[in-house]
Amino acid sequence: MIDFRPIFFVLGILLVTLSLGMGGPALADVIAGQNDWQVFMGSSATCLFVGVALILTMRTERVRFTLRQAFLLTTLSWAVIALFGALPFAFSDLGLSFTDAVFESMSGITTTGATVITKLDDAPPGLLLWRAILQWLGGIGIIVMAISVLPMLQVGGMQLFHMESTDQSEKALPRVAQVTSAIIIIYFGLSALCATSYWLAGMSGFDAVAHAMTTVATGGYSTFDQSVGFFKNDAIEWVAVVFMAAGALPFVLYLQFVRGNLLMLVRDSQVQTFFGIVFCAITVLVVWQVAVDQVPIGTSIRLVAFNLISVITGTGYATTDFGLWGEFSVTVFFFAMFIGGCAGSTTCGLKIFRLQVLYANTRCQIKKLMQPHGVFIPHFNRRPIPAAASESVLSFFFLYIMAFGALSIGLGWMGLDFITAVSGAASAIANVGPGLGPVIGPAGTYAPLPDAAKWMLSFGMLLGRLELFTVLVLLTPAFWRT
Amino acid sequence: MIDFRPIFFVLGILLVTLSLGMGGPALADVIAGQNDWQVFMGSSATCLFVGVALILTMRTERVRFTLRQAFLLTTLSWAVIALFGALPFAFSDLGLSFTDAVFESMSGITTTGATVITKLDDAPPGLLLWRAILQWLGGIGIIVMAISVLPMLQVGGMQLFHMESTDQSEKALPRVAQVTSAIIIIYFGLSALCATSYWLAGMSGFDAVAHAMTTVATGGYSTFDQSVGFFKNDAIEWVAVVFMAAGALPFVLYLQFVRGNLLMLVRDSQVQTFFGIVFCAITVLVVWQVAVDQVPIGTSIRLVAFNLISVITGTGYATTDFGLWGEFSVTVFFFAMFIGGCAGSTTCGLKIFRLQVLYANTRCQIKKLMQPHGVFIPHFNRRPIPAAASESVLSFFFLYIMAFGALSIGLGWMGLDFITAVSGAASAIANVGPGLGPVIGPAGTYAPLPDAAKWMLSFGMLLGRLELFTVLVLLTPAFWRT
Repeated sequence: MIDFRPIFFVLGILLVTLSLGMGGPALADVIAGQNDWQVFMGSSATCLFVGVALILTMRTERVRFTLRQAFLLTTLSWAVIALFGALPFAFSDLGLSFTDAVFESMSGITTTGATVITKLDDAPPGLLLWRAILQWLGGIGIIVMAISVLPMLQVGGMQLFHMESTDQSEKALPRVAQVTSAIIIIYFGLSALCATSYWLAGMSGFDAVAHAMTTVATGGYSTFDQSVGFFKNDAIEWVAVVFMAAGALPFVLYLQFVRGNLLMLVRDSQVQTFFGIVFCAITVLVVWQVAVDQVPIGTSIRLVAFNLISVITGTGYATTDFGLWGEFSVTVFFFAMFIGGCAGSTTCGLKIFRLQVLYANTRCQIKKLMQPHGVFIPHFNRRPIPAAASESVLSFFFLYIMAFGALSIGLGWMGLDFITAVSGAASAIANVGPGLGPVIGPAGTYAPLPDAAKWMLSFGMLLGRLELFTVLVLLTPAFWRT
Repeated sequence: MIDFRPIFFVLGILLVTLSLGMGGPALADVIAGQNDWQVFMGSSATCLFVGVALILTMRTERVRFTLRQAFLLTTLSWAVIALFGALPFAFSDLGLSFTDAVFESMSGITTTGATVITKLDDAPPGLLLWRAILQWLGGIGIIVMAISVLPMLQVGGMQLFHMESTDQSEKALPRVAQVTSAIIIIYFGLSALCATSYWLAGMSGFDAVAHAMTTVATGGYSTFDQSVGFFKNDAIEWVAVVFMAAGALPFVLYLQFVRGNLLMLVRDSQVQTFFGIVFCAITVLVVWQVAVDQVPIGTSIRLVAFNLISVITGTGYATTDFGLWGEFSVTVFFFAMFIGGCAGSTTCGLKIFRLQVLYANTRCQIKKLMQPHGVFIPHFNRRPIPAAASESVLSFFFLYIMAFGALSIGLGWMGLDFITAVSGAASAIANVGPGLGPVIGPAGTYAPLPDAAKWMLSFGMLLGRLELFTVLVLLTPAFWRT
């Protein structure tokens, strides 16, 4: 039997944190003279009550988590926060249904950025801030998880990032704790820098803070229906480009950067590959726009850089409906959704290191064809990849494509058209946000979808955010066997 | 340096075979009083001339092929036959361009079934027969290759089928030759049985033979623009269902069946999985059609069974434009394209055994998450899968999805819309035939596409047919280094 007490104890702590987080929006609404502050106070009180109750009743002597407990805690944390984070949406004046509230909250905490709210421009500031805070918490949550929990759980090749941070096992825990707190400070600093830049570029203080939180988290919630396109301000768009890309890099490298190891950021092969892919994709799209659609090159570079980086990093901002750029861009954007950023960043998707591992393995396979008795060992970041990590990544890729296929067919069953179904599935699992096509594209929202589709998509977001295996392992009967 | 002489020698033999194959259509045209027989005689003479010239000049003392020679020969065989097989199309009264002729021929020999010919109903019988013969030759060609060449080349996990046929290496060659001739006889017998069944069901003798050749080969060329839908005959459709499925099973099992080992066909896990997937997909689509579109259940089962098996096996016949069944079926048919049939059959696509190997590996990964120190060995057909075979299959899957993505983006660059680009790419690599959407869907043809797109698709067909690695290995610089 799994001992649930330490799990519920930690969930209690998370709920208290969430409760504190709701104080911000309540304050914003009080300042703006909005009645919605009551909703936040009520929600906050609920979280606090449940959280404290869990902490008090589930307290046990200090235990080491078993592997099963760790898996269960990881998935439950995100599910419970999504559920309690939905309270302000459910009770606000927007009149969201329970389904819509959970969808919006799940999309927030997983840093997806898909929305069912159609009139953001009229929404009270507290609610807008709450959406931003959810994504910001989700962003730091996933980085911390990628550094401390996932390598231990050996999920989808994340063990590759185990070696670096925790060589000697007895030193591991304090070291991880130390790295984690340093990275939380860096995340804070990067967000502050981003907010200041937005403000200098012309945003109001409130918009600057709200957008900074969702930019660094590569989340993509905006305070306007038109997203960042609302501002019609080139400087703001370039600030977004820089900080979306910054959110897609491994945060461990920022730590080394701060510690004086300035070159690590440039020499890291994952970072190089990320920028290589981004550069190629931007070039192809700009050439197409300039040659076929006669867009001036300066405009085209800005439009493409913003929207492509937004999709590839899974942020999900838009400055224009790129669905109208012609069918070529639709095809490119569709495949771009799958990519994602680097491991240990706020992005989701397949992730760059997995593409590198897959590529390295395939290269070895091709070499092996010509020399069947040769031994070829795939490398990542100038180090040999352990066979177990390769297998884990290769299986992850298969599972990712299967999950995408299953979700697409499920959405199709709900009556969604082909492009909405496949792009919605891809977008949810990779935590991008908008899909393609007229319904859920950058100009649309997820509001018109049937409830069942929204639940499927919410599950897809959770699945993608937790690297598939973490959730799926809970669905095997073996997990629950004593 | 690679010695090209034995390669060209074998190509010479293949061209002479092709030349003989052109005799059939010539005869058909003479009987029908069509002038087109001259085209076939001319093409046949050309093939004969080049073939004999190669045989005479490239004759060497008996050599063992090196690995490089074997790779080169495999790819060149299909490319050269596609090129020379295009002659009758290029010089016929249909007035096909060079591009269109090669596309049609490549689609034929790879058993894809995509066509650029818009008025089949008026085409001379010789040409219709030639399309059927190309697919029939392609069908047996791929089975022979899957038994004798690919396991040796260890391409994409095909080494799994090495163990069974060739345990002791000294006995290997005669044994393979023996099995190959037996399977050619079985292929012949199955085709004859299929033709007789079509004839009994109401087809004319000519149509029965032409359709039997493209059914057993899971090719999909028909003698009518409306494909099998032209006949409006339930019996014919069920005959097609049975023999398309028969073409998708491992032909080695038929051999064991004929030798009295009757149960092997039922006990083979690949066959079981194939029918399991087909059954599930049919059920889901029939339930949808009956519940949502109010189609009578009998009609629905016939329509769905025919069109789904046609797509999953990569045959490409159609009895109706399944694109009009609603968006859910479009999504299901899109993913069905990727699947394919069993290894050692005439089908293409990912193939059932690969899905089994991928699934078995992923299951082990999930088990390993809970017991990191446990040893879990994936099994296929009740035997452990060697690690090298697993890695090969896992890399194959990655390469397959990458090839699909690259081809989709390439087609998008040519101006094709999203659904045409992605379904065309999937259909070409899996050798299905029709794509989805109004242009290349079951009711359309590939004729309106730009030439560059046709060349890309032709390359995609070759790539898919030769299990990717066989072609790609030729594109690495290492292959050409001495």
